[in-house]
Amino acid sequence: MRIVVALGGNALLERGERPEAGIQQHHVRQAAEALAPLTATHEVVLCHGNGPQVGLLAVQSGADPDLAHPYPLDTLGAQTQGMIGYWLAQALRGAGARRPVAALVTQTVVDPDDGAFAHPTKFIGPVYDEAQAARMAARHGWTVAPDGPGGQAWRRVVPSPRPVRIVELEQVAHLLRGGAAVICAGGGGIPVVEDGNGRLCGVDAVVDKDLTAALLAQRLDADRLVVLTDVPAVMSEFGTPRAAPIARLRVADLDESRFPAGSMGPKIAACRQFVGATGRPAVVGALGQAAAVLAGTAGTAIVP
Amino acid sequence: MRIVVALGGNALLERGERPEAGIQQHHVRQAAEALAPLTATHEVVLCHGNGPQVGLLAVQSGADPDLAHPYPLDTLGAQTQGMIGYWLAQALRGAGARRPVAALVTQTVVDPDDGAFAHPTKFIGPVYDEAQAARMAARHGWTVAPDGPGGQAWRRVVPSPRPVRIVELEQVAHLLRGGAAVICAGGGGIPVVEDGNGRLCGVDAVVDKDLTAALLAQRLDADRLVVLTDVPAVMSEFGTPRAAPIARLRVADLDESRFPAGSMGPKIAACRQFVGATGRPAVVGALGQAAAVLAGTAGTAIVP
Repeated sequence: MRIVVALGGNALLERGERPEAGIQQHHVRQAAEALAPLTATHEVVLCHGNGPQVGLLAVQSGADPDLAHPYPLDTLGAQTQGMIGYWLAQALRGAGARRPVAALVTQTVVDPDDGAFAHPTKFIGPVYDEAQAARMAARHGWTVAPDGPGGQAWRRVVPSPRPVRIVELEQVAHLLRGGAAVICAGGGGIPVVEDGNGRLCGVDAVVDKDLTAALLAQRLDADRLVVLTDVPAVMSEFGTPRAAPIARLRVADLDESRFPAGSMGPKIAACRQFVGATGRPAVVGALGQAAAVLAGTAGTAIVP
Repeated sequence: MRIVVALGGNALLERGERPEAGIQQHHVRQAAEALAPLTATHEVVLCHGNGPQVGLLAVQSGADPDLAHPYPLDTLGAQTQGMIGYWLAQALRGAGARRPVAALVTQTVVDPDDGAFAHPTKFIGPVYDEAQAARMAARHGWTVAPDGPGGQAWRRVVPSPRPVRIVELEQVAHLLRGGAAVICAGGGGIPVVEDGNGRLCGVDAVVDKDLTAALLAQRLDADRLVVLTDVPAVMSEFGTPRAAPIARLRVADLDESRFPAGSMGPKIAACRQFVGATGRPAVVGALGQAAAVLAGTAGTAIVP
């Protein structure tokens, strides 16, 4: 099968952990142990998130205005593609991947009129308390918002426009045909807009990697979209004592509004998009159970 | 023809300029205007430097120890591959490149016993005066050295081991066969060492991109190595009033000791390696004259 795997940026850095290179590379090696076996029998495209990483680079990039002005999010997103692509490629090889691994710098075209530019919703970077968040917002011109219930944890939020087109799609397909596993569209792809002459220009945003993975899976004619995260399955009555994993969901029965934005919401939206467009299943589950999730013995299958 | 182009990191940021994203992207667009025409008739592999960029990221990465420890140079080099690869790919397309452009994250195997690890020589990052340099060295554990004559300008120096093998060579070749222009091995490639089991591990170094370009050109069976820089040609009696451009040099007549380390020295060494190994010419010249340098009407040709 040809599969497109979406891997959360949080899989590389758990909430509350210090964003050290060594800690992230440790998580990357764990992820690679789960993912490498998939390359033995499948054509694999891997699309990783970058929320914690791009946010950290944004803080560091803006910390000393005497050195340079902060770099825009398209450029910082490109930096995270290089860094995480390198870590993953090296770790997949180390974990015994049966194919060579190629990490490709990837741009994603978005619509300059996307309403998301006026309504930032994507959380990036470190967690602050409310007072710290207010100071960072004032100092850097950020928008900040509470991340999660209770209003204890605040983070920077940035626009997350919908992915419209993957610029390097043909190169991804070509690398797959050549037998490589391909890491691409990290952080949802570097967000760019296209002018009337076909020229591309970066924009200050972070695309949702689950939606980009769904678009990639559609355009690459993939057999499965595989959304890997830190929960074992989509849960019914999530957040209540009656919460229970759902093994199988018909796409017609999906109700995105039941899933909070920023966590399961975009994953469900991505699955709905892929299954609706292709009639093929999407699966959601825990990174550590990747093979079982793909085999249908763990996680949630979303079917036509 | 199949050509491998080495492009200096200084082409993206002139000495003394602030390392702003906008300034570098401006230079990248100028470089792309010179390079895009080559893609009309040639298979092009582009290998860029990253000295100013990886050094800036190292300063920013280490600036706030409460946030995170400084990331190692392999990881920071990977970040620069994403960033510069993105800038170049976008600009080449904007400048009318006749092929799709693919930027590939690339690892370069080096020898852990390379003497360079004990003798750092590669300049990276900002220029300091002697007192600032001493303070930065004490604070961050850097080695610093005067860059250029007079001892006015000091910079951090890091080990620059010789490139031994390009890990993603087959993927580069495959992308070329598919018709893409390929940006790869940025910053000379992310430096890694190989253990007895074939596992790769990053090391704290910056490889010389001219030597990596020469290795790439050899292994890809390229027809020309094209070394582009900010001087119009190799000069005889460089630095004297009698300095004059040399149009053609036999590899047997090359004397690397006449060219200072850190600038023309590694370029000459790279040309000697390629010409010696393949019997094909290497050319050296100004980025703005790229097409003329390749055609042999500008710059210096180094021949068997």
